Amino acid sequence: MLRRVSAKHIYICSPSSAVRDKAAVRRGIKRLQALGHDVEVDPDAFTSHMRFAGDDATRLAAIHRAASSGADIVVTTRGGYGLTRLLPAIRYPLLKKAVDKGTQFVGLSDFTALNCALFAQAKATSWQGPAVGEDLGAEEPDEIMLDCFEDLVEGRGEGSGWRLPAAEAQSRFREARGVLWGGNLAIIASLVGTPWLPKVRGGILFLEDVGEHPYRIERMLTQLLHAGVLAQQKAILLGQFTNWRPVPHHDKGFKMATVVAWLRSQVKIPVLTDLPFGHVPTKVLLPFGVPVHLAVDGRDAYVVWGHRH
Amino acid sequence: MLRRVSAKHIYICSPSSAVRDKAAVRRGIKRLQALGHDVEVDPDAFTSHMRFAGDDATRLAAIHRAASSGADIVVTTRGGYGLTRLLPAIRYPLLKKAVDKGTQFVGLSDFTALNCALFAQAKATSWQGPAVGEDLGAEEPDEIMLDCFEDLVEGRGEGSGWRLPAAEAQSRFREARGVLWGGNLAIIASLVGTPWLPKVRGGILFLEDVGEHPYRIERMLTQLLHAGVLAQQKAILLGQFTNWRPVPHHDKGFKMATVVAWLRSQVKIPVLTDLPFGHVPTKVLLPFGVPVHLAVDGRDAYVVWGHRH
Repeated sequence: MLRRVSAKHIYICSPSSAVRDKAAVRRGIKRLQALGHDVEVDPDAFTSHMRFAGDDATRLAAIHRAASSGADIVVTTRGGYGLTRLLPAIRYPLLKKAVDKGTQFVGLSDFTALNCALFAQAKATSWQGPAVGEDLGAEEPDEIMLDCFEDLVEGRGEGSGWRLPAAEAQSRFREARGVLWGGNLAIIASLVGTPWLPKVRGGILFLEDVGEHPYRIERMLTQLLHAGVLAQQKAILLGQFTNWRPVPHHDKGFKMATVVAWLRSQVKIPVLTDLPFGHVPTKVLLPFGVPVHLAVDGRDAYVVWGHRH
Repeated sequence: MLRRVSAKHIYICSPSSAVRDKAAVRRGIKRLQALGHDVEVDPDAFTSHMRFAGDDATRLAAIHRAASSGADIVVTTRGGYGLTRLLPAIRYPLLKKAVDKGTQFVGLSDFTALNCALFAQAKATSWQGPAVGEDLGAEEPDEIMLDCFEDLVEGRGEGSGWRLPAAEAQSRFREARGVLWGGNLAIIASLVGTPWLPKVRGGILFLEDVGEHPYRIERMLTQLLHAGVLAQQKAILLGQFTNWRPVPHHDKGFKMATVVAWLRSQVKIPVLTDLPFGHVPTKVLLPFGVPVHLAVDGRDAYVVWGHRH
């Protein structure tokens, strides 16, 4: 995967859980260096305090160092848990200034809390995309994920496309325009009613989750539904909902497809599935807070955000 | 446990998950009958539709039948999942009318959604208390739980007391008065931002949960904190948080006590623990939406709601 790319300043930090698979993060760092990048690793990237990558003050300082680093791209070692409790203490104007100067923050899972708060508090855009440990540092990183990351690095990403299930090609939906936002459903649901959930009207909302039984997915979607969040969107894109355990002898046919069918019965907007995003190797990068054009042509779906540079 | 009690009309229904342990529910029914009560079992109490005790229309009809039954007490077979998605369709004025005529709705876990919505929509009070299957139908029902249930039946319940951990006796907190409300934390968190969460100012909030790792408990408490719910309370009572699995080699000392300490650092109100309520055999009954007097004397804590009849 050695390609000639413009060398960029990439800052790696740990705002959430402590790194346990240090080898994977080191592989990710080496891979980025091998691509010619100037990789700066936050001094507390490998710090551990209980489940966290350092106590609150440590992780907060890491986020602010990342914002002050002048890096082109800030990526995280991993997700996990820890950002929601930091949200009131983050210096959003500092991060907004970094974004305005060209720093692009990238992350997923727990990082969704920062994507949301940044946009809610400062209208600053960011990215949902790979983490260093699980994705960039995988023994055999996914090609699509790497290509998308390179597109980001090169500033040439214009959108993502994916293949819809056959049944969804039947829909009359053709296109919509709106602000793309979303990420981890559990995090987004946990921000409802707080100042950290952006109020996106006419948006296109994408969602993914890991380790959550479909009944919990449904309960979280119900919260977004009853809080009026879904009614304000133009479309919902469902990514991958993985690694949950069925409850034999109790589910009796209740599964993710049941939840998707129920969701469609509750909203008047298109619900597209199979978006290649989530806790899976093959993931695209998706901008958060950016106007996009969503289009469907047969079984092909596209999200296009045009040139950002 | 045969005591002479006034015979009451007890209605049993299933608003949430399907009953799988039918023997336990049947034992509970027989136990109530042996106590001399007139037990009416909803025709769909044992119905099963996927995970649910019947589809939405079936469970909704059961709730409305219970409200129209004229029963003194409505209890549920079990909790599980299913009430949140019914909330917009429940006829609150019908339930309010039943409550005004003396029907007391009792339940826990998923039932918290109904406790909350009833109070938010109609200012109708209800109870957090045992379910028929797991509690009243246990092979050896807990004596305290049964005594509390009898107190409810007899209309003589005046409050509950429990023993605080030694460290909490040191606190300077002595007493508070406010509206008692609460129940399952996951359900309450999932109602934030929706019309079904009551806005209780100056309240006393009790919380319990099952099968949720402390980091998830903390994330849910963070939602209540950031949504401003906790700041409006006079005290928080933590019940039992049970049946969660530690994550070896990652928690590194992060446990429920960590979460309780963190919560205390975030709020200015007393946080009392060890309330005997939750997914445990020994549980008291607690009124929802009723003014109570909370008092602490050494290691003894009391919640007193006085005579309701």
